[in-house]
Amino acid sequence: MTQKELSQQIKLKKSFLCVGLDIDLEKIPPHLLQEEDPMFAFAKAIIDTTHDLCVAYKPNTAFFEAYGVKGWQSLEKTIQYLNKNYPDHFTIADAKRGDIGNTSTRYAKAFFEDLNFDSVTIAPYMGKDSVEPFLEFEDKFAILLALTSNAGAFDFQTKTIDRLPLYQQVLKTTSQYKNSERLMYVVGATKAEYLQDIRKIVPDSFLLVPGVGAQGGSLEEVYKYGANDQVGLLVNSSRGIIYASQQEDFAEAARAKAMQMQVEMATLLRL
Amino acid sequence: MTQKELSQQIKLKKSFLCVGLDIDLEKIPPHLLQEEDPMFAFAKAIIDTTHDLCVAYKPNTAFFEAYGVKGWQSLEKTIQYLNKNYPDHFTIADAKRGDIGNTSTRYAKAFFEDLNFDSVTIAPYMGKDSVEPFLEFEDKFAILLALTSNAGAFDFQTKTIDRLPLYQQVLKTTSQYKNSERLMYVVGATKAEYLQDIRKIVPDSFLLVPGVGAQGGSLEEVYKYGANDQVGLLVNSSRGIIYASQQEDFAEAARAKAMQMQVEMATLLRL
Repeated sequence: MTQKELSQQIKLKKSFLCVGLDIDLEKIPPHLLQEEDPMFAFAKAIIDTTHDLCVAYKPNTAFFEAYGVKGWQSLEKTIQYLNKNYPDHFTIADAKRGDIGNTSTRYAKAFFEDLNFDSVTIAPYMGKDSVEPFLEFEDKFAILLALTSNAGAFDFQTKTIDRLPLYQQVLKTTSQYKNSERLMYVVGATKAEYLQDIRKIVPDSFLLVPGVGAQGGSLEEVYKYGANDQVGLLVNSSRGIIYASQQEDFAEAARAKAMQMQVEMATLLRL
Repeated sequence: MTQKELSQQIKLKKSFLCVGLDIDLEKIPPHLLQEEDPMFAFAKAIIDTTHDLCVAYKPNTAFFEAYGVKGWQSLEKTIQYLNKNYPDHFTIADAKRGDIGNTSTRYAKAFFEDLNFDSVTIAPYMGKDSVEPFLEFEDKFAILLALTSNAGAFDFQTKTIDRLPLYQQVLKTTSQYKNSERLMYVVGATKAEYLQDIRKIVPDSFLLVPGVGAQGGSLEEVYKYGANDQVGLLVNSSRGIIYASQQEDFAEAARAKAMQMQVEMATLLRL
């Protein structure tokens, strides 16, 4: 998928919502545990009831990988289901990989070619030769961790290097990498005012924004400080949507929560 | 395994060698591709011929994950084989994970409990709450990326924050984390003289050192600047050992290369 197509989907659906699939077997409705593949059954139900309200899905690979071979099978089924039934949705493998040269190339092939994800999240710590292998694939994106929404973000990301916080150095340095037009960035909503500075460095890049809602960020502020003329935002919600109910009505409850966010987004997009 | 047991193994075998299992189907001897599970067949042969010369094995999970479900099966078989046949070897899942709270906990359980690895490599970018979940498991270790041996290491790791390079800030900050005695650090051999400064910050931690040989680092210098009174070093070699030959004699060739390193290590340990 191209960035232009993603922007078109956002305008069409009046939504820049990304639904995070952090599928925890201890949190999904107990009746699903009787299914042959509970993780996929849960993912499928969530996807089927929310697809018209969001433009992206983000399976968190850790939750799948935690179950070894079985988990990988569930992840494969989930991305195959998305690609087959909802090809207009942007898909994000939230894997937070980061390794050198040939290893990065392996990961890029696994996520982009074998699984056919549109994008994968990447850690910046190892620098250029850990990121560039992910940027060699046409219409595929690497989403780099810049400023995350957790408490530990203040350990290193906000510390100053050459008069700029590390996360801004990450934006500045990586936007000089080869094929950097295929980079997007993770920027936590808990510090929405930071988005102003971020937009000065990467005016055109899409930003994947976690931390709205549960972690305290305001959607209105994220839009105010973070949107560009192509919108340029994907706001992620995981637990707030997918665990809205742990009863048999979980899918409808997830839809209601997603709709609440989509309605708010539609209002912001009209401004 | 405890750090003390690891040190004992090093003294017993006169070796601080870690063999990296970066198993690339395009590089292993072609005759193995006829095996039912070529990755495991290769790993098993390398392990069986090198085990008495090394104290640790480090499967690089990317190479397995690149093959999806099949790759995970090969990884599971490899670690099960190690745990069953060579329980005195320290095992490292080179996964370079790094995510927040509940996701990190998932990964920690997957690698430490389900697969029973002794350790897993971790990226520091997300800070405290991405690292501490890995430190809650007794006799298990998180090996944090500090200073890697690739060219991109100079993009961020060596940049100065509060008068110290970022990688030293990582050492300093993380050594204050809860259960930090379960931390080890990746420090590339290509900058062996840096090890002096590193030892001032983490005198007692084990260091996992890649980049000797192929990437230009000197074993002698690594030992000179990096060893502590428990040795405290694991020097990794991957390609230099496992791809010593791509013919039918690959396992013997790998043994010869491993022995070359072990002999050099034995000499250093006598000093």
